[in-house]
Amino acid sequence: MSLDDVLSRIDADLPAAIERLMELLRIPSISTDPAYAEACDQAADWLVADLAGIGIAAEKRPTPGRPMVVGHVEADHDDAPHVLFYGHYDVQPVDPLNLWTSPPFEPQLEDTPNGRVIRGRGSSDDKGQLMTFVEACRAWKAVHGTLPCRITFFFEGEEESGSPSLVPFLQANAEELKADIALVCDTSMVSRGVPSIAAQLRGMLKDEFTITGPRIDLHSGHYGGPGLNPLRELSRIVTSFYDQETGRVAVEGFYEGVHEVPAEQLRQWESCGFDESEYLNSVGYSQAHGEQGYSTLEQQWARPTLEVNGLWGGYNGAGSKTVIPAQAHCKITCRLVGDQDPDKLRVAIRKHVEAQLSPDAGVIWDNDLEGSKASVMNIARPEMEAARGALSDEWGREAVFTGMGGSIPVVGFFKSVLGLDSMLVGYANDDDAIHSPNEKYDVESFHKGIRSWARILDALTR
Amino acid sequence: MSLDDVLSRIDADLPAAIERLMELLRIPSISTDPAYAEACDQAADWLVADLAGIGIAAEKRPTPGRPMVVGHVEADHDDAPHVLFYGHYDVQPVDPLNLWTSPPFEPQLEDTPNGRVIRGRGSSDDKGQLMTFVEACRAWKAVHGTLPCRITFFFEGEEESGSPSLVPFLQANAEELKADIALVCDTSMVSRGVPSIAAQLRGMLKDEFTITGPRIDLHSGHYGGPGLNPLRELSRIVTSFYDQETGRVAVEGFYEGVHEVPAEQLRQWESCGFDESEYLNSVGYSQAHGEQGYSTLEQQWARPTLEVNGLWGGYNGAGSKTVIPAQAHCKITCRLVGDQDPDKLRVAIRKHVEAQLSPDAGVIWDNDLEGSKASVMNIARPEMEAARGALSDEWGREAVFTGMGGSIPVVGFFKSVLGLDSMLVGYANDDDAIHSPNEKYDVESFHKGIRSWARILDALTR
Repeated sequence: MSLDDVLSRIDADLPAAIERLMELLRIPSISTDPAYAEACDQAADWLVADLAGIGIAAEKRPTPGRPMVVGHVEADHDDAPHVLFYGHYDVQPVDPLNLWTSPPFEPQLEDTPNGRVIRGRGSSDDKGQLMTFVEACRAWKAVHGTLPCRITFFFEGEEESGSPSLVPFLQANAEELKADIALVCDTSMVSRGVPSIAAQLRGMLKDEFTITGPRIDLHSGHYGGPGLNPLRELSRIVTSFYDQETGRVAVEGFYEGVHEVPAEQLRQWESCGFDESEYLNSVGYSQAHGEQGYSTLEQQWARPTLEVNGLWGGYNGAGSKTVIPAQAHCKITCRLVGDQDPDKLRVAIRKHVEAQLSPDAGVIWDNDLEGSKASVMNIARPEMEAARGALSDEWGREAVFTGMGGSIPVVGFFKSVLGLDSMLVGYANDDDAIHSPNEKYDVESFHKGIRSWARILDALTR
Repeated sequence: MSLDDVLSRIDADLPAAIERLMELLRIPSISTDPAYAEACDQAADWLVADLAGIGIAAEKRPTPGRPMVVGHVEADHDDAPHVLFYGHYDVQPVDPLNLWTSPPFEPQLEDTPNGRVIRGRGSSDDKGQLMTFVEACRAWKAVHGTLPCRITFFFEGEEESGSPSLVPFLQANAEELKADIALVCDTSMVSRGVPSIAAQLRGMLKDEFTITGPRIDLHSGHYGGPGLNPLRELSRIVTSFYDQETGRVAVEGFYEGVHEVPAEQLRQWESCGFDESEYLNSVGYSQAHGEQGYSTLEQQWARPTLEVNGLWGGYNGAGSKTVIPAQAHCKITCRLVGDQDPDKLRVAIRKHVEAQLSPDAGVIWDNDLEGSKASVMNIARPEMEAARGALSDEWGREAVFTGMGGSIPVVGFFKSVLGLDSMLVGYANDDDAIHSPNEKYDVESFHKGIRSWARILDALTR
């Protein structure tokens, strides 16, 4: 039977597939830092060449930022479904570099208590996941010379830096990118070995501000006492973001558009195999620290956050410096749920900060940061049920519809610009340390991920 | 009359004296950063050579850290007083470098609305002030071939990094460093043109800590909500240091040993020419921000502080990174007054921080930071009155005894190790931007400072 041949081919080709992934991982395609623009270009070229090797015509398409990669391939029969597959080839910055046990862009195969892993920046987010789909197509073509679905490949290089070029590109190429459904591989499994389809994603709001105080850095002997210290001011403002009793965000209007999770869905979530203690203990937590009155899953999937991602000011070098700095800096991101409106929230947060300022303190906002609303998938679509069956077959246990704490803005833009529903299937684990030092991807995720896509492509044609 | 000849010589030699100071300012002798150890060595060599040029035998004396410079010269008569002059040749770090209008170690002569200034790191703190004394001695020797006092020169290279080698050096060389009184030139004038003798100094306590949370940096999508964020934790802890109502430090036991200033002394301070609005407005403040119920002068001279000098954690590069960092870092210094005990305070502060920690949060302390108590000068000594007269003659207005917000630990060690009282005379102005970008020293301070020391040396022999 044709699928079995493809699956055997995948098994046999796994070592070569891992070597191909490692090649891609060696390219330091960090998109947030302009210094790596050329590496992003190289990663795009690598993908174009790799698809060409499978006989799939793709090209690198320029944008004002990092290039997109777009490729098309016909199916073996005319009434085959048309899917658009999305993944991103850019990766997060690697700092703090000193915490990596091996160089982030020199991928390693390692044996761990949880099995074999591929260690390196981007191994899980998202190069490894992207390649699960490419490898599935490679195997299918190798066995049958064709593919069961009509496929548009769409790879982005700016996902980790807010996708500034994405919407203009989708708008300019709407006709070419039309399909029946988008397949997105950038999510994780609710728990090790539990195949998962993400049914909702949190949105994202980014902002950055600088608190100003004295005109210049001051000597803490001459001005310590009378002098306003922006570091102290910033600490107070950050603290004011939260209700210390309940853990809720204290910004007025923050929860506008946030809905409680229906009891029925909560029951389904709580029974979908999420291992709360594994999730918390694996990173050193003994308990959940979010909003009181909500389960850990709700805090992660269904509640909004206001998170401080960076804080800096004054002297941080060796020794000490008796300074009252002129400025203090803060980077924040919010995770949004339900109908929270990023634009309204940005105004509310800025109003909150400005209301906290002491006399002689000021605030300067960074003005080119974007936001995206939360998204909910249409799980009534037949493709969802087909994929759930295929995943259940591969992993030997019932696949589940889950929430997601992360944000994948492209899903919202596929809907708003292309009118395209998305199906989110990914094989990452919570301990993959994505965005952290020592990011890894389980070989099991990679291998079964490739097999899963082969099964899904097959199932979509039934 | 001999003093007048010396003063004329000083006036005539001013351009050459400025050129000598600029040579010294070109040496980047930053002591807090090991990368500049060699530059500190060069600065010490330069001083030895310069003293030799006046006919004063001095040598560079090694320490485990930066070298000391020690020199001795006899007086023109046997019953002359013996003074030890102290200054430091090391300077503060220069960051933030981008705020400097000219390179910190390429000193410039500039005309400003307040007159001519020498711009560059160390011009005021303390190379310029140190050289006022050396130049006074040079002129005296040039005119008379001798000096009116027996003088021990003692220059340190670690003042800006907590003087780790100072006490062992004083102990090991106590006999050689004995004198009648120490003259220290590292202070400022209470207001432009008002000659000042500092009668009390605040002490100093330094500490540094790291707040720990998750085992690794986390993705703010996967863990935002349930995840404890060390940046948020640190902000709350810093905020808890202060009573937001009164501006007092809220650490238990912090004010133990702090005494109110006697009404009589307060009256004298308030009448000593301190220009409050110049002091505040020159750095961008419209008001004092310290403890309620205390004047700006009291907040600066007579009240203790707990100041945050550096705060950092998470991502501070270009763009954004959706991270919950594993750690957050904080550098603090306290200014101490009265009988506050730095060792007891360190314990109290650490206890306070530890009491604030949430579950799953930890704290790591830096353990090699020092402290020093506040000091009060003995203004009953005859040398004080002699100097006050000399300063009044030079500046054309009554010299005053003031407090000081800064800390000069050497003064306490001169007393405790050598049994030596100190007299603190300095010519810096509050707008010198010491420890800040664009540090400067007024040419008036330098010129009249040299003349002042000539007068003081003369007066001490009466």
